[in-house]
Amino acid sequence: MAETYTLHEYSRSGNCYKIKLTAALLGLPLDCREYDIMRGETRTPEFLANVNSNGRIPVLQIGEGSQARFLPESNAACWYLASGSDLIPQDRFAMADMLRWMFFEQYNHEPNVATLRFWMKFVGEENLSPDQRAQIEGKKEAGRAALALMDDHLASHTFLTGDKANLADISLYPYTHVADEAGIALGEYANILSWIKRMEGLPGFVQMER
Amino acid sequence: MAETYTLHEYSRSGNCYKIKLTAALLGLPLDCREYDIMRGETRTPEFLANVNSNGRIPVLQIGEGSQARFLPESNAACWYLASGSDLIPQDRFAMADMLRWMFFEQYNHEPNVATLRFWMKFVGEENLSPDQRAQIEGKKEAGRAALALMDDHLASHTFLTGDKANLADISLYPYTHVADEAGIALGEYANILSWIKRMEGLPGFVQMER
Repeated sequence: MAETYTLHEYSRSGNCYKIKLTAALLGLPLDCREYDIMRGETRTPEFLANVNSNGRIPVLQIGEGSQARFLPESNAACWYLASGSDLIPQDRFAMADMLRWMFFEQYNHEPNVATLRFWMKFVGEENLSPDQRAQIEGKKEAGRAALALMDDHLASHTFLTGDKANLADISLYPYTHVADEAGIALGEYANILSWIKRMEGLPGFVQMER
Repeated sequence: MAETYTLHEYSRSGNCYKIKLTAALLGLPLDCREYDIMRGETRTPEFLANVNSNGRIPVLQIGEGSQARFLPESNAACWYLASGSDLIPQDRFAMADMLRWMFFEQYNHEPNVATLRFWMKFVGEENLSPDQRAQIEGKKEAGRAALALMDDHLASHTFLTGDKANLADISLYPYTHVADEAGIALGEYANILSWIKRMEGLPGFVQMER
């Protein structure tokens, strides 16, 4: 019997969408269980004890009941689903280079582009704390630097690490394609715009919920 | 002929040390080339053009001259070196679970514990900008939460993802063992202290430069 996959998610999160996009491109069925992060549903004692003690989504659940295993961290969940597939190159350097972009995503891109989008679109600028407001300009600058690095690289690459899309592209597409919602104009990044079109043309591609 | 490895580094950086620790545990020779990040030596046109357009260290260089390839992101460099070794488990879930801790390190741990340490020990609290100073308490709280999560997990695990040390432990050891220098007292985390001793007892272990 095939393994079952359950995604514990907030469907408007780009980190959750990464996993759904991976599953869709691979043709894998994925059950989704929604939590409202705005209402603290991932901080309940039950969630912390049974799903993720870090209180965060997404978490990929593999299997059911007492045999279930739980995998937090969006990029690790994508890795699990894609293991053995064409979405992970087998060449030693190419595999490490793909991971390089996935770590870049979590360190340089997500904390800037995704956090700004969350603040602007979900929390609302008027509800931000003074500390958060003081970080907006720094995060915009760092977010633009991350996009500029991608744009320069995509000037000479079809996808981030070669001729085919892999998890590097899947991890960076979600928050990049909605960078406008973070207050960063995507129009300046022509190579990113072309890459977004290539991503959206992949067989099995699904849109992010907005 | 065996591949040659050159680490472009700042030797007091924990991210650089991860790669040296990986090489040491594997018995791989590694040439090191030092850059003074406090003097902007990773932002020169030459560095940006030839080593890393992101202007950051560490970068692992594989090979020499026109054949050289460059791999930024510390955890990706560790992955490359450790490919095919016991430092990466082959089981599908174990491998993804190891990556889970490595992404946690870059997202939840490093931006708090390592950044605070850099500010306190290298920049000096008196030289921080008002924006940076406003972030200290938030980063301490988030750093403590990351350590508490590790400590809880290590209450029932010898190493982070099993009975043997792997890249998950190597990525989290460097900044964890000097968390005191970030202003976070390690004495509260008894399971982490035991794990630190186990790490320091690994055959081939080398200390971080301080």
